[in-house]
Amino acid sequence: MEAPEIPRVRVGMVGAGFVARIHAEAYRQVHGVEVEISWVAAARPERAVEFAAEFGARHTAVDARVILADPAVDVVDLCVPTHLHAPLAVEAAKAGKHVIVEKPLTGFFGPAATPRARMLREALASADAVIGACRDAGVRLCYAENWVYAPPIQKARRLFAASGGPILRLVGEESHSGTHAPINKRWETGGGGSLIGKACHPLGAALYLKADEGRRLRGAPIRPVSVLAEVAQLADTAAFPAGAPGYLNTVEGADVEDWGGMLIVFDDGSVAQISASDAVLGGIRNQLALYGARAVVFCNINPNDAVQAYAPDPAIFAGEYITEKIETKAGWTFPQPDEEWMTGYPQEMQDFVESLALGREPLSTGGLARDVIAVVYGAYLSAAEGRRVELRPLL
Amino acid sequence: MEAPEIPRVRVGMVGAGFVARIHAEAYRQVHGVEVEISWVAAARPERAVEFAAEFGARHTAVDARVILADPAVDVVDLCVPTHLHAPLAVEAAKAGKHVIVEKPLTGFFGPAATPRARMLREALASADAVIGACRDAGVRLCYAENWVYAPPIQKARRLFAASGGPILRLVGEESHSGTHAPINKRWETGGGGSLIGKACHPLGAALYLKADEGRRLRGAPIRPVSVLAEVAQLADTAAFPAGAPGYLNTVEGADVEDWGGMLIVFDDGSVAQISASDAVLGGIRNQLALYGARAVVFCNINPNDAVQAYAPDPAIFAGEYITEKIETKAGWTFPQPDEEWMTGYPQEMQDFVESLALGREPLSTGGLARDVIAVVYGAYLSAAEGRRVELRPLL
Amino acid sequence: MEAPEIPRVRVGMVGAGFVARIHAEAYRQVHGVEVEISWVAAARPERAVEFAAEFGARHTAVDARVILADPAVDVVDLCVPTHLHAPLAVEAAKAGKHVIVEKPLTGFFGPAATPRARMLREALASADAVIGACRDAGVRLCYAENWVYAPPIQKARRLFAASGGPILRLVGEESHSGTHAPINKRWETGGGGSLIGKACHPLGAALYLKADEGRRLRGAPIRPVSVLAEVAQLADTAAFPAGAPGYLNTVEGADVEDWGGMLIVFDDGSVAQISASDAVLGGIRNQLALYGARAVVFCNINPNDAVQAYAPDPAIFAGEYITEKIETKAGWTFPQPDEEWMTGYPQEMQDFVESLALGREPLSTGGLARDVIAVVYGAYLSAAEGRRVELRPLL
Amino acid sequence: MEAPEIPRVRVGMVGAGFVARIHAEAYRQVHGVEVEISWVAAARPERAVEFAAEFGARHTAVDARVILADPAVDVVDLCVPTHLHAPLAVEAAKAGKHVIVEKPLTGFFGPAATPRARMLREALASADAVIGACRDAGVRLCYAENWVYAPPIQKARRLFAASGGPILRLVGEESHSGTHAPINKRWETGGGGSLIGKACHPLGAALYLKADEGRRLRGAPIRPVSVLAEVAQLADTAAFPAGAPGYLNTVEGADVEDWGGMLIVFDDGSVAQISASDAVLGGIRNQLALYGARAVVFCNINPNDAVQAYAPDPAIFAGEYITEKIETKAGWTFPQPDEEWMTGYPQEMQDFVESLALGREPLSTGGLARDVIAVVYGAYLSAAEGRRVELRPLL
Repeated sequence: MEAPEIPRVRVGMVGAGFVARIHAEAYRQVHGVEVEISWVAAARPERAVEFAAEFGARHTAVDARVILADPAVDVVDLCVPTHLHAPLAVEAAKAGKHVIVEKPLTGFFGPAATPRARMLREALASADAVIGACRDAGVRLCYAENWVYAPPIQKARRLFAASGGPILRLVGEESHSGTHAPINKRWETGGGGSLIGKACHPLGAALYLKADEGRRLRGAPIRPVSVLAEVAQLADTAAFPAGAPGYLNTVEGADVEDWGGMLIVFDDGSVAQISASDAVLGGIRNQLALYGARAVVFCNINPNDAVQAYAPDPAIFAGEYITEKIETKAGWTFPQPDEEWMTGYPQEMQDFVESLALGREPLSTGGLARDVIAVVYGAYLSAAEGRRVELRPLL
Repeated sequence: MEAPEIPRVRVGMVGAGFVARIHAEAYRQVHGVEVEISWVAAARPERAVEFAAEFGARHTAVDARVILADPAVDVVDLCVPTHLHAPLAVEAAKAGKHVIVEKPLTGFFGPAATPRARMLREALASADAVIGACRDAGVRLCYAENWVYAPPIQKARRLFAASGGPILRLVGEESHSGTHAPINKRWETGGGGSLIGKACHPLGAALYLKADEGRRLRGAPIRPVSVLAEVAQLADTAAFPAGAPGYLNTVEGADVEDWGGMLIVFDDGSVAQISASDAVLGGIRNQLALYGARAVVFCNINPNDAVQAYAPDPAIFAGEYITEKIETKAGWTFPQPDEEWMTGYPQEMQDFVESLALGREPLSTGGLARDVIAVVYGAYLSAAEGRRVELRPLL
Repeated sequence: MEAPEIPRVRVGMVGAGFVARIHAEAYRQVHGVEVEISWVAAARPERAVEFAAEFGARHTAVDARVILADPAVDVVDLCVPTHLHAPLAVEAAKAGKHVIVEKPLTGFFGPAATPRARMLREALASADAVIGACRDAGVRLCYAENWVYAPPIQKARRLFAASGGPILRLVGEESHSGTHAPINKRWETGGGGSLIGKACHPLGAALYLKADEGRRLRGAPIRPVSVLAEVAQLADTAAFPAGAPGYLNTVEGADVEDWGGMLIVFDDGSVAQISASDAVLGGIRNQLALYGARAVVFCNINPNDAVQAYAPDPAIFAGEYITEKIETKAGWTFPQPDEEWMTGYPQEMQDFVESLALGREPLSTGGLARDVIAVVYGAYLSAAEGRRVELRPLL
Repeated sequence: MEAPEIPRVRVGMVGAGFVARIHAEAYRQVHGVEVEISWVAAARPERAVEFAAEFGARHTAVDARVILADPAVDVVDLCVPTHLHAPLAVEAAKAGKHVIVEKPLTGFFGPAATPRARMLREALASADAVIGACRDAGVRLCYAENWVYAPPIQKARRLFAASGGPILRLVGEESHSGTHAPINKRWETGGGGSLIGKACHPLGAALYLKADEGRRLRGAPIRPVSVLAEVAQLADTAAFPAGAPGYLNTVEGADVEDWGGMLIVFDDGSVAQISASDAVLGGIRNQLALYGARAVVFCNINPNDAVQAYAPDPAIFAGEYITEKIETKAGWTFPQPDEEWMTGYPQEMQDFVESLALGREPLSTGGLARDVIAVVYGAYLSAAEGRRVELRPLL
């Protein structure tokens, strides 16, 4: 018996920042497929060089187009600001490259005062452009929604599959004390606030789980049919400034919401309550609850109590990571032993490179990405007009 | 130094069922005021006699009017089905008795098909009738919202008061696997489903906490200004019957919702996400989270981990109470060491009899009761018409 | 039907400090029995006056003997340093007063270098003197071990009673960052360190639960037969001083242990692992686990998650109590909504005054108190001689 | 820049059972080193063939010596009953193979009535034989103590390293409802009961962490100096048979202890309380608490709340794994999303193959394995003779 040849996937990274590093670290942990980081492109050449040195990328570039021109690249991994996702993805597809796009796939990028109906229309058109370009070029679109791969979410999926019963209600949230990145505080570059930047995670997982359930129980995905939503800028109220000197990060310079809540109805009559906030202290919260007719499952991605730590003074743990966005390292905390693993990054990249190496669909697809866009921008429209938005015409 | 005379409060109980027993047990624990249960009235005489024997009530009656006619009664405690609250409360007030009314204060009781706008109008008129009658008669109206008194809620109030900062967002829920009482499954007698019967609790606590915060920070209560809501009958869907044989109690004979979600905005820009469900397995959930600009507090009334228990077989703990509505006593459970205490009943009755003995307002008032009615029926209107409902004109 | 006359118990408090205040607060919450604090005695007259004003005590004294001479006093409540328990209890019994004694009942009080065998002998003789005096005088001895009354412990007892099965193993602990009281850091006044001052609590609960089980399952209490123990002064090691500037309180001036662990075997073959430490950061830990042949119960007296709070800065909750001995109010904490209730104080005083008013034994007796002394001083002997100590000859 | 050649490690598996499968699954996830399972040996040829088919092993054998004779094998992985560890490890070393041995490294295997002093002597001699053979042959000895690699343990190590302070006290436990494997119920094959089979895990982690701390803070490992211990057969008592029909697995045919508790003192004055039981219901417990002078860390390997699930009936989750040794799938449970990962298996194999490929020591060494043997058999001696056992002469 001869050992099989290990397949190889050659990646061109576009971007060398925070997310690119998480992806590269995840590629390093891939097994069974050899991943080669062929290129890394960054606007600031020194960052590309640094990244290449750390992660063993073969070539560096300033312009992503150089990567697209290299026939030895199999897939382009777009770790760039959200408003650049769609144009780069379309170009990559046209160049015949598979595409990995970070969440959200795309959105509307323009003035905050734009009517939400137009935002919704343009965001969907942008998503369709990406999906169409990939389909036309015969390349795969991998939607990097890590929650689909987070171990608690996949365990919940298996538990519900074992139970044989439906999910009647989902309650999910991602929140923390606010982005530090200016690009995510503005409609022009972030395409919205808490809903598009954070709620996309529990929403993506919820849509994925209901679609999976539908395929299992009735042979076709269960889809959302309506959304009712409210948004707010909690850190921009009369009461706020006096009371809160600096714990929340979205106070200055933001034109997007720092809280949004959505009430979603699915075509089987089940519901989801999905919310997100950039005005939550105490460290990131990544949670999804599944209430079923025969079972209940809670996914506590973050925090959970696998590790609990205490320090009387915040300086004591200064040298060690605790968890995303925690304001103090004093008191009791819930440090993640391996935040990337619990959040699904290595599993996500494993699936993506396997999907490319083996010629199959990844678990997290462009179709899911588009549904997320439809629901979130439907929610923006709902909140603006104070009415329920029907999603069927949009899907 | 002479010991002060202990004041006495003479109570006429109307009703001898589940709630009446909880109240009577709570009266027994009152200290510093002598509580005498003078009367107990029940439609079935033998239940009144039984109750009197157990709790030491002096007299029994079939008709509550007999109690109202006794000049030796100070306060009437209405532990009767919801649709009887308002008429009995008005009569009691007219008879010069103080009134204790279980939650919800009142509602709309009629056909399920009634337009929600009319429901809202009539429910508020009913609340106003009770409040007006008490005001005119110069008697106190004690609104038996036990969450106001639940130790975790009061601790949260004190922690936020200490913090000096505002609550930006509340997330609350009461849920379980559904009422067994037929009267609570129908609009005619229950006045609605999960929202009026369960969400009234976290909603009442949220409104109480924001009102309290307003008085503290700006000298006037903070009030809700709008509600967006969705409701559903989760146990009445195509997928449901096959999968869930009998764990949920609301399947048969219900014409009310078994899930509702509300998105509420307050006049200071803060928000609340309040939901309730009669389609949740695993034991009752009573939870409220307070996210502030300087602090976060979670109130885990039920479940919490003060006690954790495990039995490999459900028969093992057959003889001991675990927690409300848990479907099995097998596996890990979170038994309440004293569910009444943790839920606020003894503290509530202590406050009520003190308020009567000392001539001061109770913490939970008719004003709070009316706000709850306005928000919940505003939510029913919102869900029916698929639009945001403004609350200011209703308060 | 005439209301029964409410019985009355007249208490003479000896001591006006921390524990006396907890007791007085608990007396205030007693229902069904009228508790009158007739006297309060304190060495410093102004403290007695203050206490009397706050809790409504009728008379104040400097010398406890004045209280013993008043025929109108029913029971004396000894809230004094441990080394004063026994002499005062004996005197009170001789004066015909019932006696309430805080834990531990008594001990050995003398030089740290005293051989442990002598400590054991003298401590037991002291306990016997108290028990004998009460028996001879026909008065009750109430042993104020609040854990017997803590709601989680009583719930565990009921759950095991329902299960019908034995407890095979108990694991219990009380720990925190160390006493501030100099009297509890020295053998002369404290009678030992962590074992006598803290481990007495989980040990008392464990002995109570096994005795109760024995009465239930075989008609006679199950008793301990041996103890193996180790003690240490963790805050007095080579490594310690450099690393820990000031978080632990037992560093200076202590001649007693700040950690002890006991391995106890019962006469039915079951076991207990009981430990205590004055070198534990993060707030007091009060925990007991019961592993049975048919069930498991965890009692999380402190911490538990009924309330969880977070503040980015320790000053934010400066004005509100969090939990005993927490070093910082920053980060996540587990504030007790009502620490006295969860720890069993009101329930304890309710039982004591009822036992006196109704002429029955309290749940926590002198017999339990003596068993605790035997095991703890047996443990000191075991640790000193590095060998198992048989308890049968001592009980 | 040229991609570096990926190093390759060729493994000969001895054993094809439960543990071998966990190891093989872990090898599959190794990245950066190519692992080839060259051989699998099993006494029953069909099991080897099955295993080879599933995990891609190249050759199968009945006799491990065939593997030792193949010069193409780099390392032998011994997944065989404990009493076979030492002889096979010595043979493998002599054949020039690196050796991976499951925990415990070795022990005493003979009649239960053997004096514990002889057990201790022979177990240490056996450990020394293995270590000596590896040293003489110049091969590495990898001690497969997965707790060293469990993410919560490594996070705790990093948090304490960051804190700069010492661990003063460790409290650890591994327990469940008892082994099903007859070989682990007998001294002849298991070398003891709960202490050697389960306590070895938290003990191994505790010894590892204190050794690591010593190297960091004083340049040399901190070692244990004494142990006091007690053992019991809880499922073999008078009370037991009536109450517990079948939930515990060690009742029939066992001659080893089903509970053991150890009190260990280290050479820096710090202590550890390590226990294990085969008489614990509710699913496996894998926990270690670290109490330091500046910090506290709890490692909740199992259970933790990353996922919480509920089913009203045990059949509902019949098709999905929950957690090791849980007696019922009803009620609330804490399913592990990936039990191998959380328990450290993939990380362990990654370290082992890297240590072989790169020529460095693994984290978990033969030295640690020997210390575990010394403490556990010292504990058996302590329990038998009822006295503290000094460890210094044994290390």
